[in-house]
Order: sequence, then structure tokens, then C-alpha cells
Amino acid sequence: MIPVCDVQNSKGDSGFMLSRVGVRGVRKPVCILRDIDGNALNSMLFCNIDVFVDLPAIQKGSHLSRNLEAIKELIDDSASTPITGIENLATDLCKKLLEKHEYASTAEVNIQAEYFKNSVTPNGRTTMESYTLYGDAVGIRGQGIRKTIGVDVIGMTACPCAQQTVTEILGCSDEWPVMSHNQRNVCSVFMNMDESENVEANGLIDLIESSFSSPTFEVLKRDDEGAVVINAHSNPKFVEDVVRTVLKKVVERYDYLDDDVEIVIRSESEESIHKHNAFAERTATFGELRNE
Amino acid sequence: MIPVCDVQNSKGDSGFMLSRVGVRGVRKPVCILRDIDGNALNSMLFCNIDVFVDLPAIQKGSHLSRNLEAIKELIDDSASTPITGIENLATDLCKKLLEKHEYASTAEVNIQAEYFKNSVTPNGRTTMESYTLYGDAVGIRGQGIRKTIGVDVIGMTACPCAQQTVTEILGCSDEWPVMSHNQRNVCSVFMNMDESENVEANGLIDLIESSFSSPTFEVLKRDDEGAVVINAHSNPKFVEDVVRTVLKKVVERYDYLDDDVEIVIRSESEESIHKHNAFAERTATFGELRNE
Amino acid sequence: MIPVCDVQNSKGDSGFMLSRVGVRGVRKPVCILRDIDGNALNSMLFCNIDVFVDLPAIQKGSHLSRNLEAIKELIDDSASTPITGIENLATDLCKKLLEKHEYASTAEVNIQAEYFKNSVTPNGRTTMESYTLYGDAVGIRGQGIRKTIGVDVIGMTACPCAQQTVTEILGCSDEWPVMSHNQRNVCSVFMNMDESENVEANGLIDLIESSFSSPTFEVLKRDDEGAVVINAHSNPKFVEDVVRTVLKKVVERYDYLDDDVEIVIRSESEESIHKHNAFAERTATFGELRNE
Amino acid sequence: MIPVCDVQNSKGDSGFMLSRVGVRGVRKPVCILRDIDGNALNSMLFCNIDVFVDLPAIQKGSHLSRNLEAIKELIDDSASTPITGIENLATDLCKKLLEKHEYASTAEVNIQAEYFKNSVTPNGRTTMESYTLYGDAVGIRGQGIRKTIGVDVIGMTACPCAQQTVTEILGCSDEWPVMSHNQRNVCSVFMNMDESENVEANGLIDLIESSFSSPTFEVLKRDDEGAVVINAHSNPKFVEDVVRTVLKKVVERYDYLDDDVEIVIRSESEESIHKHNAFAERTATFGELRNE
Repeated sequence: MIPVCDVQNSKGDSGFMLSRVGVRGVRKPVCILRDIDGNALNSMLFCNIDVFVDLPAIQKGSHLSRNLEAIKELIDDSASTPITGIENLATDLCKKLLEKHEYASTAEVNIQAEYFKNSVTPNGRTTMESYTLYGDAVGIRGQGIRKTIGVDVIGMTACPCAQQTVTEILGCSDEWPVMSHNQRNVCSVFMNMDESENVEANGLIDLIESSFSSPTFEVLKRDDEGAVVINAHSNPKFVEDVVRTVLKKVVERYDYLDDDVEIVIRSESEESIHKHNAFAERTATFGELRNE
Repeated sequence: MIPVCDVQNSKGDSGFMLSRVGVRGVRKPVCILRDIDGNALNSMLFCNIDVFVDLPAIQKGSHLSRNLEAIKELIDDSASTPITGIENLATDLCKKLLEKHEYASTAEVNIQAEYFKNSVTPNGRTTMESYTLYGDAVGIRGQGIRKTIGVDVIGMTACPCAQQTVTEILGCSDEWPVMSHNQRNVCSVFMNMDESENVEANGLIDLIESSFSSPTFEVLKRDDEGAVVINAHSNPKFVEDVVRTVLKKVVERYDYLDDDVEIVIRSESEESIHKHNAFAERTATFGELRNE
Repeated sequence: MIPVCDVQNSKGDSGFMLSRVGVRGVRKPVCILRDIDGNALNSMLFCNIDVFVDLPAIQKGSHLSRNLEAIKELIDDSASTPITGIENLATDLCKKLLEKHEYASTAEVNIQAEYFKNSVTPNGRTTMESYTLYGDAVGIRGQGIRKTIGVDVIGMTACPCAQQTVTEILGCSDEWPVMSHNQRNVCSVFMNMDESENVEANGLIDLIESSFSSPTFEVLKRDDEGAVVINAHSNPKFVEDVVRTVLKKVVERYDYLDDDVEIVIRSESEESIHKHNAFAERTATFGELRNE
Repeated sequence: MIPVCDVQNSKGDSGFMLSRVGVRGVRKPVCILRDIDGNALNSMLFCNIDVFVDLPAIQKGSHLSRNLEAIKELIDDSASTPITGIENLATDLCKKLLEKHEYASTAEVNIQAEYFKNSVTPNGRTTMESYTLYGDAVGIRGQGIRKTIGVDVIGMTACPCAQQTVTEILGCSDEWPVMSHNQRNVCSVFMNMDESENVEANGLIDLIESSFSSPTFEVLKRDDEGAVVINAHSNPKFVEDVVRTVLKKVVERYDYLDDDVEIVIRSESEESIHKHNAFAERTATFGELRNE
């Protein structure tokens, strides 16, 4: 006989409701089936999953094993009901959590996964690059779901200020771009929207990658390495410039998104001349950006 | 002659303001001078400092070196004007940032540091334990500063549900506490308040440490190890229980704090029976908690 | 025309040879095709790859892009020449590195990847668990390759000493196992062998998983949670015991391996009663173990 | 009465000795008193301490609490017997471990700590920079102690190959240094020696810092930022060059060290044009280096 421990259902000692109770760090391989320009594309993602529901004051504990069952059921069902993105998996998980935790009024899911995508060097060679995808969702019982799609992209920034300072110190001519400090930059974009709206990760990655001083590549032979360095110095950018370039492109590209879609854009440079990082961020709704 | 590169002051390309521009990961040793029950106490903290200001659309770049100068000046002045806590250092940094960045209307500072404090085992031996302190501040020009004090404390939780399930499976008597799974738990508390209010870190740490199934200790001889295990199993707690115990104690102890003080309490258990973690959180104002 | 920068081939300034020059942190999805008891099994692994060769004193620089080309070629060829394990990929990479870097006399490859495998709870439910695999190889030109297969497995340890101390303090009867502290334990095993020898990762994982106080599981309903706790306390183990149990099983199971196969076994417990970890390790050859 | 649990002293189940048993991740503030050119210098270091002894086959468990007592006693005694460096603390800990663990024949200690030191920018401004120090020791009963002093230093490398490739592509004149990619580089040096020998950390840090394309600084006003960029591009270095420059300087500076002193030098660049890192390493004895 299965024991019927009911400690969780007993009355809470303290009388306080809790905002979020759940599990963090569940690891799961998930097969994603996307439609990219009419072609079916399968990708395997190794997901890190956090799930939470709220807990009323009256109940002592949340049934944590139900969270793991919810995850398992959705993934088991994916043969018949394909998962079309981790933000959509997060959305479906929110719905299932509200079904399984009848005492809960809110559910939240955060998913993170590494993602690989082909890229092309300045001289036309194909490489494979690594990115981090985020798919989140928050649901309130009876009020629908808001989901978030996010991505981290690594690129390169060359500093416009040091370039001008060096030009002044040395009296360089403007025949070709002048040296500067340059470094790895991580640009992250998160877009929070109604569950009915959609943003394709590949397009968002391309948009971000074109907003650095230069994208970066896994393999660079001499001529490509030279081209990347020249491109970056012809296109120097502060962290501020990376964020503003993404802002401009996002407003243009995602003109179909609602005014209430919220966006966070971050750019962080691992400064080559300092041991600390430079950072810029903008948080706004599309409505605000369209009026700026 | 010092070059007068003015790239930062040139007009922004894109017309978008930025919410936060600054530096992350600045490392600094800071000497803190506190008054603990009438006694002056010096502690050296190795701080990780992030500072940001906003940037109007009209300006291309933020003057990042001013952030480092602001940090340096406050620490250099600490011989004459002692730093009384990292949340107060964060507050003073916000003010200095608004002075130095005349174009900014908001400033934000996040500081994190390891902290050591003596503790006493159940059988009276003295040990030294390690904690993480957080001191944050956000200022809006002309509207004052809100600061946050936070702390991570590591303790131990023993599961009440497994204890009851084992009792049922084996038919254990209630002569002494029954075995359960137990594990490391990290409980974090953050309190956001007006800059004029104060919460002493030592008191907050003690409060949290008394909210686990048991605190944990650097050195435990046999009798103390046995006492910790017995105490933990006599006092089994879910992550939910840890948060609710802290909630109850915080409301009692900090009765002098304003209703608008916001608190976040998190408890995360590195479950010994799973590879993932259990998690509970409450976010609320003191006003809300007092009416619950 | 492709520029013919030959900085790398110019004479070294300092006259010192270098032991290892290469790249670290290359991320690659790799499809592994294994034969498990006569069945073909495909697994996708997301690999972190480090590759190095030595550099003679006479040469200024190593041709780093050749390392990336070597990785790419082996993975591109895997349609016709399947990759049968990351330790075998490491072995083949060593050979290719020695081909591509004609000036090198040694090559080294370290690969790490997350791996998922089904497991079964005490009461027969199927779960999916996460592990870390390691595949390394070192080659000396003209002397063959030594490869290493390794794995991290997370399990649970319950302390035998605290159990006895509690028994003495409380005067517990021996009707059922007594409470103790228990915690997450990471057990890592690395086996270094000639490239012609083989160890299947699944078997090694099972062996380690059966050497804890109890394995741990993704989903545990009440009866399974109770069974895991009872099993763990019926089978209390120090970190020392975990290593010795693995040693005993490894010698029995891998009786076909040469005496010169080297093994490292580590067990690290995230102690629930302390903020620090307990650790045990044995490094030995199979020859030494067989004579102990 | 203190319980006399003797589980550790009981006979081992499996008959295998263990190479290293102990604790990892003990956190301790340690006050170091050094003599720098005749001046007493106090520094507070927050140490991460790992300690191990071996365990004979005959004994079931190592007495882990003795490790914590050994650490506590040495630090408590430091008022009368000052600690003159973390490598010397590691040495003294090894001796005390062998006293306390009468069954052990080897002891090992690894200590790591953040360290701050003043530096001076090209134009003479004072800054404070952060480093990581390592102090290790291994002792064999009756055979003395070998200790290791190590340090991580962050600097900047500019690539000589990209600089030449760009020169060729653009046909740049050689009036001033040409642009290249540059990035953060971490150079680590570890020196293993008899306990009677000494290497001052400050001198080793200065030596490494002068081996990059340029050191990096916490605060850089315009003129200093320009100078750092110009210096780095006038002094382009591969990771290989950083290691060889350190090798050359180390052999010159530490001419008083024995031929059997072992050195490991690593240089790792967080490549701005790639998502992966470039890496070079040399492992050698001073005797080998002196004959190269």
C-alpha cells in the first residue's frame, strides 16, 4: 500500500501565503520541432527547467513531485503534440501546473538551453556558433499566460572613444581605421508577450549578431581574421551603441508585435583594458519605444 | 596635454534613452565601522561592486571612469567619514554618481561581500561561519534613495513528509525523531527601505539561522554532531516552513520598520534525494504581512 | 588573394619550447553511435572541447585554426565514420592534430558533455537522470595514444558516525535504522587506458550509482521517497566508503583491463551539517589494486 | 558524557588504502604579516582551504573534525606566531595534520585567496588591482614538505598575426602600430619548491604584469586609456609569447632557486574574435629551463 502522508495538505503554521514554491535545476533533453520558412526543423535542446506555483496560507506544503510529473508528461506527449519552442513549452507547462496544483492561482516556468546555429564568415566559410536560449512563462488562473523569449549572443565591440583618443595622441591620418581596445561582448534580449504572439529565435539571433562591431566565429583563417578585425574597427561601438542598435532594429523588424510587449536589452563587454565589465541596458514596452 | 576625446558627449545615433549604463564586477576591499550595542566593530569586506546611471537619448555615451572615481573617493574618505555598512556605502555612492553624472536622473548600486561571524555550537564551542551580504541602493534625482540590505545564510533542513512516510512504512514508534532526508539549505532575505531606516546584518543573520531545522557549523565534535542531527529531526522543515518562520520572526522583530518596506525571502534546498533543488519564496511589503 | 601572414612560423623570441598550446571551450554538438548489447544507440552530446599540441622552441606560434578544422572534419565525417564515444573522438582528434601540426610531438584532447540515462526508482517507476561524461586522450608521435573515460554521478550519502552517536545519545533500539545527516554526493571516476581498451559509460554509471548510500531520482512519489530514505539509512556511508565500494566493484567488473590502466575515484559530499564538503580520493593502477 | 563513537577507527571494509581524505571549501579570514623590503606589511586574506591526509587500508574513516581544529589552532596562534604567506600557512598546516592524524603518512593543503595590490597607470595615477593567490603544500612523514606559491594575473594581449594580416590587406604604412584584436588574458604561474625557499608574491605579480601586451587598470582617464591601447599594439603578443616572456624573466629573476624547483606557466586569452579561448602552457624544472 502506498503511504498517504498528507503533511503538505495540513494547515500552514504561520498563516502566510507564499509567492513561489517549486523546483529549480531540473535537467531535461527536449526535442523542438519548428517551422522555419516552411521547412520542418528538429533541434535537440538540453533544458534547465525551474517551475513554481504559489501556495495559499491555509496549506502547509506544495506537492513538488507534481511539477516533475508535469514536465515528464509534456515531453512524453511531444511525439503527438510537438514542442515548437522552449517559450511554448514554458506556456504549456504553466497550464499543466495550474491543472495539477488545484490550490494554486499562479504558475511560473523558466527554461534555459544551449543552442547551436550555423553562421557564415566574412569570406563565406560556414561555421557553427553557440547561443543561450531562454523561454519563460507566467500564468494567472483565469487570466491567460504571458511568455518570454530570450537569447544571449556573444559578439565583439571595439571602443570608439579609445580610437579617437589614439588618433589625437599619435596624429593618425584617416586612411584606415585606427587601433582601439576590443573585447568579447554578451548581448541579451528578452521579449515578454502574450502567448498568442511569436518571435522566431533564429531571426532574433541574426538581428543581435548584426548589432555588434562584428560577430565572432568558431573558425577564422587568416583572411577572415583580418576581415573581422577591420570590420570591427570600421564600426566601433560602446555597450550603449549595441543596445541602441538592437532597439532600432527590433522596432523595425517586429512591427507586428503589440504595444504592450516588453523588451529588455543588455550589452556587457569584458573590457580588455580593465578587470571589470562595461554594461548598458534598456527596459521598455514597444509602445514606449515607438513613441521615442 | 590630455586628449579631449568627446565621443561620449556627442549626440546619440538612435534617439533612445538607456535605463542603466555603468560597470560591473569592480573588486574593492572596504573597511566597515559599525556600532554593535555601543561597541565599535571594524570588519574588512572584499566587495563586488556594480554601479549604473541612466543615459538620456541625446547623449552618446556614459562617462564610465567617473564611476570608478566615485567608488575610490568614498573609500579614500572613509578615514574621516566611516562606512557603516555596505547598504550605506551603496546609498552614498548613488548620491555621488548623481553629482558626477550631471545628465543622469537615476543611479543604482549593487554591492556583494563575504562576511564572517562567530557562532556557537549546541554544546557551547565557538566557531566561525561564512555568509554573503548584499547592500543595494537606487536613487532618483530629487526623490531620495531606497536602499536594500540582504544576506545569504546556509543552514540545514530535514523533510517532515519523508519523516512521516517512513514512520508509516516501518511503523516506527514516536519515542525519538524518525530518520528523514536532510540537506544544505540557502536562505536569502532582502529588505528594501528608505535610506533613513536601518537593519543590523548580525541580527538578521541570527534570525535566519534560527529558522532552519538546524544551523550548520564549521567544527563539530561527536556530541555536537549528534546534537545537530537530533535538533534537525526534532524540527523538520520544508522550504516553505523556512520562509514562513522567517516571515513570522521578521514581522515581530522589525516592528519599527515602515509599512512600505519590501521584503523578499527565499529558501532553496539542495535536495539529497534529487539532483534538483526545492525552492520557496515570498515577496511582500511589511504592510501586507501585518494584515495577513 | 589570401594574405600569407606567417608570424606563427617565424623563430621564437625566447628559445623555450611550450608543453601545451591550443584552444579551450570549443562548444560542439556530437552524435554518438554506440553498440549496447547488440543494439545501436544514438545519443546527441553537447561537448566542451579543449585541444592542445606542444610547440618547439624554434617556432613562434601554433596554428590555432587548424585545431578547429580538425574538430570540424571529424564531426563532418561522422556520417560515414561514426563516433563511438567521446573518449574515442578524443583519440581520433589526437591523431588528426599530429597530422595537421607537423611540428608537434604531443597532442592532448579533453572533452566533457552532459549525458542523460533512464533509471528506475525502488518501486519500479522510470525516471531520467543527468550525468557528466569525460573523454580525454594524450598522444605522443610514434608512441600511440592513451585515452581516459570519466563520469560524474550524483548520489546520496548518510553518515554512519552520526547514526551511531545519535544511537548512543538517545539510547535508540535497533528496530529500524536511526536518523543521521545525509546529503548530495558527487562521485567521479576516471580510467586511463590504451586506446585499444574499452569501458562502456552506462555500465560504469550503474556501478557508481550502486555504491552510494542510495542513488537519487528525478521524480519520487511518497512510497519511493520513503524507500530511498530507508535504503540510505540502512546503508550509511562515509565518502571513504563510497570510494572503497567503487574500488571493489571496479576490480571485479573490469577484470579484463590491463594492470597498467590507471584509475582515479573521488567522492565529495556537500555536508548538510557543515558549509564545507567532505572528500575522499584514490589514485592507483589496476595492478596495484589487484595486489592490495 | 561525550559519546565515544568510534566508527572511524573500525577496520575498513574493503581493504583499500585511500590517497586523500579530508575537507574542501573551508572559508577563513587570515591575517598575513610580511616583511617587504624591511617594512612589516599586514594583509587580510579571505582563504578557501582544502586539506587532506591519506588513510591506511586498516582504518575505516579519517577524523575530519581534526582538520578544522588544525586550521583553527594555527590561525588562533598567529598573534604570537605570525603567518607570513599562505604557502607558509599551508606548510605549517601539513605539519600539524601529520601530528593530529597519527595514522597518516602524507598530508596536502591547498589555499586560495583574493589579493589586492596598488598599481600605477602609464601616466602615473595610482589604482588598486585584484589578483588570486595560491599557497599549497604536500608533506610526507619523515621527508619534509614541498610548497607551491601561485598567482593569477589578468592583463591584455593584442594579436601579432592579425596585425600583420591587416597590414597586408590594407597596405598600411608602419608610421604607427596597426589595429588588431585584443582581449583579457589570465596568466597563472605556480612554483613548487622546498619549504626553505621563498618567492615574494608582489615581485611575481609585477613580473607577470610586465609580460602582457599591457597590464590593465581599474581607472583609466582618456590619456591613460590611449596609452594602454598604444602600448599593447606596440607590443603584440600571442599566448605563447606571454608564457615565453614569463619564462625568460623568471629564470633571470629567481637565479637563487634550486634546479629542482618546478614551474607551471599558463596564459589564456578570452579571444575577442572567437567564443572560445586561446591557451599556452609550459611545465618544467628550473634545471631544465637553465639548460634550454
